[in-house]
Amino acid sequence: MYGRIESLLKKMSRQGIDTVIVSDPHVIRWLTGFSGSSARVLLGPERCLLFTDFRYGEQVKQEVDSMESVIIQDGYADAFVKGGYLQGKRIAVQEEQVTVHEARQLGEKLKGMEIVPVHGFFYEFRMIKNEIEIAYMKHAAAISEQVLEKILPLISPDVTEADIAAEISYWHKRLGAEKDSFDPVVASGPRSALPHARPGTDRFRPGTLIVIDMGCVYNGYASDQTRTVALGKVTDEARKIYNITRAAQQLGIDAALPGMSGKELDALVRGYIDKHGYGEHFGHGLGHGVGIEVHEKPRLGKSSDDILPLRSVFTVEPGIYLPGKYGVRIEDTVVMEEGGAVPFQHFTKELIEL
Amino acid sequence: MYGRIESLLKKMSRQGIDTVIVSDPHVIRWLTGFSGSSARVLLGPERCLLFTDFRYGEQVKQEVDSMESVIIQDGYADAFVKGGYLQGKRIAVQEEQVTVHEARQLGEKLKGMEIVPVHGFFYEFRMIKNEIEIAYMKHAAAISEQVLEKILPLISPDVTEADIAAEISYWHKRLGAEKDSFDPVVASGPRSALPHARPGTDRFRPGTLIVIDMGCVYNGYASDQTRTVALGKVTDEARKIYNITRAAQQLGIDAALPGMSGKELDALVRGYIDKHGYGEHFGHGLGHGVGIEVHEKPRLGKSSDDILPLRSVFTVEPGIYLPGKYGVRIEDTVVMEEGGAVPFQHFTKELIEL
Repeated sequence: MYGRIESLLKKMSRQGIDTVIVSDPHVIRWLTGFSGSSARVLLGPERCLLFTDFRYGEQVKQEVDSMESVIIQDGYADAFVKGGYLQGKRIAVQEEQVTVHEARQLGEKLKGMEIVPVHGFFYEFRMIKNEIEIAYMKHAAAISEQVLEKILPLISPDVTEADIAAEISYWHKRLGAEKDSFDPVVASGPRSALPHARPGTDRFRPGTLIVIDMGCVYNGYASDQTRTVALGKVTDEARKIYNITRAAQQLGIDAALPGMSGKELDALVRGYIDKHGYGEHFGHGLGHGVGIEVHEKPRLGKSSDDILPLRSVFTVEPGIYLPGKYGVRIEDTVVMEEGGAVPFQHFTKELIEL
Repeated sequence: MYGRIESLLKKMSRQGIDTVIVSDPHVIRWLTGFSGSSARVLLGPERCLLFTDFRYGEQVKQEVDSMESVIIQDGYADAFVKGGYLQGKRIAVQEEQVTVHEARQLGEKLKGMEIVPVHGFFYEFRMIKNEIEIAYMKHAAAISEQVLEKILPLISPDVTEADIAAEISYWHKRLGAEKDSFDPVVASGPRSALPHARPGTDRFRPGTLIVIDMGCVYNGYASDQTRTVALGKVTDEARKIYNITRAAQQLGIDAALPGMSGKELDALVRGYIDKHGYGEHFGHGLGHGVGIEVHEKPRLGKSSDDILPLRSVFTVEPGIYLPGKYGVRIEDTVVMEEGGAVPFQHFTKELIEL
């Protein structure tokens, strides 16, 4: 973690910032390992400090050894001021994280200091994963693949989407994950055309596509994967959009190279789906970065200026959704190596018919 | 939901506000039933509108019938301006929710309008639950109590905290909950002294206290309960702090009356624990409101000015934590009726020895 703080202090010095108030819990976990839900970190050239409240007094001792910690009595702004913890005059806050309310409180209490809103201050550092982070994410991906193996045989007309979602969450934890990285999506029939459907309580009907989008968290790091399977025989059209999606997804993985933009890769995959007549039915971006957060930088989509750097980790997940009928999505999480994108997932992308 | 919007429009008119931009997803679910993660609502005297993106196009049709919806192409601010959806000149934003970044974007795009940060605009309405909300919360509580029944017999020196946490999440879903209302706490031995411990992967040791804090979400509404049980024989001191906590918790329930402040009830329970010599080991507030969010208004604690109104729902959860040794917490969620607080939970508070 030491290298991270050094790089951040250099960036601060370059931008004339004396202290950064970190309020995003994901950045705090990335910086310090602390996993509690309420904390702030002050980054300054002389020292870095983590602030949290009583509830996390023991946890902070167990999780954090890279910086001093302070247990606050009142609000964070009060603690910063009373303890004289703020170094210098130009104090940066994360504008995409800090609420108007908190900024106002800081403004009132930090007399004689300038509060500088900064945007995406940590993005370029968080995007590039180190070996440990990649190892955790591979492990998270492997857990989810084992879970997929376990739950596919349970799908039948006797159970519901919600039952399968419950099994996914259960096996994630039983196989060593902290938790799901998001609520699992198990969406069949017309619900498979909803990219973010919540699991329903109707039993599966034969002759349906089922989109299963799931991930877990291992040592703080997320995984994310989607497979679409068939229960019984599905229509030729369903099979067709499956094959187009699958080829488009493979194209996305094969074409990715370090330094490419998220927009470029998205356009390539989108162009393929468009050429096959389903462009209007692929209504979301191609993917997103994965790390401490299951959705982070870089973004891959029509309007994303993000670059896909070496050692970035992101999803490639095209989908085709025919409203009222069915949908297909296929997703791997990949790490960008020098020669291109390497998926963490190994699960087959042949259409499985249960 | 119509009554809610009427009351809100009255408050807006009283405060000279023409439009409220609602950005808190919990308020949006409370107002409209929409459960997607990204949305905005505009409340105005002529019409109310819900904005979301493509991913939720189908879901919004299924979940929302109380107001029109708009699927945005770009950002929310752009959609508001391009569609001419903002009524009047004084536009309120939720200052405890809107980030500095979003406020800046709105400021740049909403030319000629005044942006008014408002705080807790919905608190007084959300605190008072209607019959349907109370019914959902009772049902959520009943599910969690069934789950507690199921998982207690599974606790033994052969399993871990994480195993039991996995069972809790699983059974919540299997018994009809949407999901956990928060990650279950299963904390034994010295970890039971951490009010927010994450489940560990060591097996349970006999002769330990185990704090089990859990809740689920049913139709959008949360439950929250804690019981502390013993595995094998525990020390006299453990038994002593159990009994003090139990009596303190009962005192809190018995003393609650509508119109009392959260500070008052907290002081009463805290005084009891203090009198028995453990005041310094009860380091958190007495409780918190529960509803669409598992932590909402009113707050019960030393520095809370919140009043506990009729039909508010909140937790009563004192604890005593002896660092390095063990901790006890006992928690029910109660609804404030005219004659006092009525718990949703019925599970015994006798010390169970497994």
